[in-house]
Amino acid sequence: MQAPAAPAGSQQDGPLAGFVVLDLSRVLSGPYCTMMLRDLGATVIKVEQPLVGDEARHFLPIAPDGRSAYFAAINRGKKSIALDLKDETDRRVLDQLIARADVMVENFRPGVLDKLGLGHAALSARHPRLVYASISGFGQTGPYRTRAAYDVVVQAMSGMMSITGHPGGAPTRTGSSIGDLAAAMFMCSGIQSALLQRARTGLGAHVDVAMFDAQIALLEGAIPELFCSGASPGPIGARHSGAAPFDAFRAGDGHLVIAAGSDHLFAALASVLGSAGLTDMPQFSTRALRVANHAELKAVIEQRLAQQPVAHWLGQLERAGVPAGPLNDVATMMRDPQVASRGVLPPIEGGAGQRAPVTPIVLSGRPYPAQLPPVPALDAHREAILRFAAGEATALD
Amino acid sequence: MQAPAAPAGSQQDGPLAGFVVLDLSRVLSGPYCTMMLRDLGATVIKVEQPLVGDEARHFLPIAPDGRSAYFAAINRGKKSIALDLKDETDRRVLDQLIARADVMVENFRPGVLDKLGLGHAALSARHPRLVYASISGFGQTGPYRTRAAYDVVVQAMSGMMSITGHPGGAPTRTGSSIGDLAAAMFMCSGIQSALLQRARTGLGAHVDVAMFDAQIALLEGAIPELFCSGASPGPIGARHSGAAPFDAFRAGDGHLVIAAGSDHLFAALASVLGSAGLTDMPQFSTRALRVANHAELKAVIEQRLAQQPVAHWLGQLERAGVPAGPLNDVATMMRDPQVASRGVLPPIEGGAGQRAPVTPIVLSGRPYPAQLPPVPALDAHREAILRFAAGEATALD
Repeated sequence: MQAPAAPAGSQQDGPLAGFVVLDLSRVLSGPYCTMMLRDLGATVIKVEQPLVGDEARHFLPIAPDGRSAYFAAINRGKKSIALDLKDETDRRVLDQLIARADVMVENFRPGVLDKLGLGHAALSARHPRLVYASISGFGQTGPYRTRAAYDVVVQAMSGMMSITGHPGGAPTRTGSSIGDLAAAMFMCSGIQSALLQRARTGLGAHVDVAMFDAQIALLEGAIPELFCSGASPGPIGARHSGAAPFDAFRAGDGHLVIAAGSDHLFAALASVLGSAGLTDMPQFSTRALRVANHAELKAVIEQRLAQQPVAHWLGQLERAGVPAGPLNDVATMMRDPQVASRGVLPPIEGGAGQRAPVTPIVLSGRPYPAQLPPVPALDAHREAILRFAAGEATALD
Repeated sequence: MQAPAAPAGSQQDGPLAGFVVLDLSRVLSGPYCTMMLRDLGATVIKVEQPLVGDEARHFLPIAPDGRSAYFAAINRGKKSIALDLKDETDRRVLDQLIARADVMVENFRPGVLDKLGLGHAALSARHPRLVYASISGFGQTGPYRTRAAYDVVVQAMSGMMSITGHPGGAPTRTGSSIGDLAAAMFMCSGIQSALLQRARTGLGAHVDVAMFDAQIALLEGAIPELFCSGASPGPIGARHSGAAPFDAFRAGDGHLVIAAGSDHLFAALASVLGSAGLTDMPQFSTRALRVANHAELKAVIEQRLAQQPVAHWLGQLERAGVPAGPLNDVATMMRDPQVASRGVLPPIEGGAGQRAPVTPIVLSGRPYPAQLPPVPALDAHREAILRFAAGEATALD
């Protein structure tokens, strides 16, 4: 039903081309997951409440033209239809769409969709091939299942905030919403694993991802530390608990980061610093000793670094093969030659200059898209989606 | 070749059952990705350098029995074989394994495997169905492609550290290694998308995921903020840039977090605080105004919170449906009733009591495993893997 040439921003040749995702999710965790699926080639039909739409349409920051730049970054390329889940006519459309979908994604509180007759039990009986994906704060089971959660709640409860920040300092949240994003990323894997399973068994699945569980799954170092020491680790600034030097260091005109935990890299760093003797000092002679004596080691390193600016050291460290880098702000990162070369942040079509990150998966050398597809206005694709729902069109893209 | 009953920790009924993953990766990003694939049911053959093995086998923290608890948490359930990639006999085994694998995962610096005749170009010619997955610091293309990166380097260069921490404070790294883990999670999705594509086309793919790009992809709020304001956002402690109140707050005996950005939740919070008038104050009357006046709002809220302990407020907030939670340390999180009920942290078989987080994806109500499979000693599965490589066994699990 489309012109033979793929429209700008089309992912018809992406690995998930042909899969249809019905997206009932709102705000961040669900929409980020369906953004990934869209970027990988799936068609995503975003079902929104009439008039208001996804509440993230009204979230800060707001662009000069009045739309939410936050919403735009995460929802480009989706097809929007406004449907009232409690209205009989709209429900018939939704039921048609469910029948045509491979995947349905939702992030309501557990139980909400059951009451509307849209729970997994009801739908799987009628649509056994459907992959039904539920992201929630605490999961579909357990004593907290009906509690709502937002990012900072799971960052706090998981222990993630207890290991982020500085010793004795105020509570610190990771600056991005990794509570939502980790759940979104795990769900994207969970959905695809269910699709691979369906290819074998013919049956869909209910995929249950909890933001809380997802955050705990990221504690790759802290949980082993507690096991070994018997004490919960605390925040350690920019350091790593298991490697040193692996931290931010002050040079002549600012900070840089250096990651030289192995004996080999530590020797290369010592050579760059003109402190070859560093590797002979008994307190720094093994990885474990460098971690134990990290404060003394940092003082010695910063004494040398103070003598030259950051740019000098980064050049030297790069030549020596020592992993290091500048502490970029977001604007500096966006001008970075590597970011430009890979095209990590294409402009959004019709986005008045707004750029957004791609889903960072390059397949077989196919570059990231030069432009991201447009952001749907609320209900923008109503007619096309109705035709698709009724079986009058075979595809939306 | 196994007893008909699945052994403890077997994932033979997981969604990726039957897929074979050849894992040449080391340390964290690659191994975390293959841990996810294993937890989802795939067979993972871990190829390690002789004698030393994956260098993470020697990483802190070290358990009382002398093994790395860090390594254990990420490598449980994999099958290990030691192979010297430069030895002719070992290379024949590796070539046999490649021929039998669906997926190969590696995180060497770009170019290293090409020099050994194990690059994507060489292998895809002989094995067109192979999904070849490469995680690197900066990707397979661009001016930085041959640079090494560790977690703190991409957290710094991406701008993630520029938005994490407190205004005017020292540089702060997220306490977990999200530089590695985000790349691992994107790669897990990338691999599965390539497998789904292969089911349609019969052809494998080269999947290229860069830690740097993956970190940029997590800046869901900061990049839109720069677009709208023209200035790079800075660190804001435990706050959220687009919602308030959404922060850590001090109560009578410690901190808690509250996420009540919407008008509805803000009204519920005001009611819990016994400050119904809060919603009538003009400076707090909209979401945007609450964000603009967040410091004043925090002071008002903390004045009320100071009058009772954390536990009091958490009970009240839960009853009112306001998302909130305690700032748990890792030990407290591990005792949480929800964590116990879902079984998020099962013991590792043979792990002397060590627990590790599951891959947080529940499929169709199948609970997380009650026990995680054992951690392989270096080269522990040599004989079985050699039989599998030679075609004398059809499966390893």
